[in-house]
Amino acid sequence: MKLLKSTLEHVEEVLIDPYGDIETRFKAFAIPRGSLGRLEELAKLYASVKRDVKCSIRHKKIFTMAADHGVVEENVSAFPQQVTSQMVRNFVEGGAAINVLARHVGAKVIVVDCGVASYLEAGSCLKIKKIGLGTKNMAVGPAMSREEAVRSIEIGIELVEEELEEGLDIIGTGDMGIANTTPSSAILAVLGRMDVALVTGRGTGLDDESFQRKIRVIKKAIDVNQPNPSDPIDVLAKVGGYEIGGLAGLCLAAARHRVPVILDGFISTAGALIAHAIEPKVNKYLIASHLSDEKGHRVMLKLLNKIPLLDLNMRLGEGTGAALGMNLVEAGVKLLNEMATFHEAGVSEPRIR
Amino acid sequence: MKLLKSTLEHVEEVLIDPYGDIETRFKAFAIPRGSLGRLEELAKLYASVKRDVKCSIRHKKIFTMAADHGVVEENVSAFPQQVTSQMVRNFVEGGAAINVLARHVGAKVIVVDCGVASYLEAGSCLKIKKIGLGTKNMAVGPAMSREEAVRSIEIGIELVEEELEEGLDIIGTGDMGIANTTPSSAILAVLGRMDVALVTGRGTGLDDESFQRKIRVIKKAIDVNQPNPSDPIDVLAKVGGYEIGGLAGLCLAAARHRVPVILDGFISTAGALIAHAIEPKVNKYLIASHLSDEKGHRVMLKLLNKIPLLDLNMRLGEGTGAALGMNLVEAGVKLLNEMATFHEAGVSEPRIR
Repeated sequence: MKLLKSTLEHVEEVLIDPYGDIETRFKAFAIPRGSLGRLEELAKLYASVKRDVKCSIRHKKIFTMAADHGVVEENVSAFPQQVTSQMVRNFVEGGAAINVLARHVGAKVIVVDCGVASYLEAGSCLKIKKIGLGTKNMAVGPAMSREEAVRSIEIGIELVEEELEEGLDIIGTGDMGIANTTPSSAILAVLGRMDVALVTGRGTGLDDESFQRKIRVIKKAIDVNQPNPSDPIDVLAKVGGYEIGGLAGLCLAAARHRVPVILDGFISTAGALIAHAIEPKVNKYLIASHLSDEKGHRVMLKLLNKIPLLDLNMRLGEGTGAALGMNLVEAGVKLLNEMATFHEAGVSEPRIR
Repeated sequence: MKLLKSTLEHVEEVLIDPYGDIETRFKAFAIPRGSLGRLEELAKLYASVKRDVKCSIRHKKIFTMAADHGVVEENVSAFPQQVTSQMVRNFVEGGAAINVLARHVGAKVIVVDCGVASYLEAGSCLKIKKIGLGTKNMAVGPAMSREEAVRSIEIGIELVEEELEEGLDIIGTGDMGIANTTPSSAILAVLGRMDVALVTGRGTGLDDESFQRKIRVIKKAIDVNQPNPSDPIDVLAKVGGYEIGGLAGLCLAAARHRVPVILDGFISTAGALIAHAIEPKVNKYLIASHLSDEKGHRVMLKLLNKIPLLDLNMRLGEGTGAALGMNLVEAGVKLLNEMATFHEAGVSEPRIR
């Protein structure tokens, strides 16, 4: 609790381009005003978080937060639970989609065991921060204790602080956890005060029957646990997950240390929703990479007032959307740093403004 | 004409995954079915054009086609004509947005003088294929002769063939030419049989008065020249531009040599529209990188039945959207080549399908 508390005490509001010097620089570039669209917006946001017009992005890290979920015993996923640990091994061996995409964009993947249901060995890219062997089944009682919920957030904070020394210019979030769209929908339903059926999707690919069961299970979990929508840690404890708490912690610590965060899809955004509910100032540090195909993600992004950069019908998680989005942020920052001005390039300015 | 004719004779239809082996490969990957969304679609298209499941992308080249337009004397652009040649120099010196973004995605920029209104010297990244010192003013007569229109298309064909030996795995299109949204809107209005006002935008940033003038000028150009909508070369000659013909030629030659093309924005897509009208089989070789903020681009993409990969409110041209889109195509192709299967990764398959 001490780590979380001290983190929250140091989160400051982001002021976008308070001295107008980023705007001035973009106006000087040899391009029609505003023609770089959202790339300019991304550069502005990044430089404003860094408080540095001459910032650059070198250390790109994607945290793929893994954990298991007791609620899997309600048959809410198309895949069996052991896939979580199997996929963690796949991440470590470099054969997963997130490894391919992270290599493509020059980012490092840090896989984190927040509570996978089997024992894994730490490695160069696998950190063990295990709270337990998966959460409890939220359909019959709280997924975890309040202490565990705080601890899960602090995992995320620790991860950011461990990486700061080596360098951490941008954070991508990602997840792995069989059944974790179920707690994510539950969190959205509670924090957004929304009907469960409207914010629940088919996850990795449920058939109609399983999908209807998933909706009933989420309703039951909320009914049984009565999470308090005004207390995000209570929501995380009762209907959340270890990796979702970790994802919330990443967002909070990133804000505290002024590192922009690029959110992946549905589960990562559920973590961001918890972080935002704990401390709304975190919002401006967050960039939505893509719109997931998972139903409910659109609503989540709306609650956070975010317009995603990409809409490619992806729904894989792992941090795959974050990797692609990170590349666009980097493009924006490079434009800010490397483009010639009208004056430098000897280009005439517009005669009509 | 000979070069164009022989190119057209060799364009074949693309069959998407005719043996189902790309589909089989994606089904075997350790991911929920379909969860990579459009990245899978891009990989499928790329591999189908290449007729090779094990294809990879090494030689990425963006052709930034430059030319001037006689219609500039009607005051249809916010910038003076000399900006075309000034920007070409900026491209050569590496200070423009396209240079920054091409470096970011590892692509080479080839700048081509198709008809800039001043004499430029060829260089390592600047090719001189000049047809004239800018087109004639289409508001008073044809922009160019039919022979020049054919020659402009053949410039694009030559460029592709010149690069094939060194290696050309994917082509990005791009443009530079003060006033060139004017002929692009004219081409769209004629080929799409649409009202000029509905397909004309503010280009680099016109005020209301100039914008209304631009619409009148395009209407006049169509009225004076009576381009035949069933004859795309006639349309190109009467209300087109040298670089637009070059862009059409790039598309046709890319199809003939089975190289996928990633289209930039409004002007590049106008070139693609001409190519598509000449030979509809070219369509499947084309990928739309982004939706430009320039009014009319949405309609153009609809005519080509393309859904853009990105929507970032950009409207710069140069090939900037193509650079970003190319990076996504490469991501898809890398996933196809580098991901582990369920079997290789030792990951359990779904129990519910």
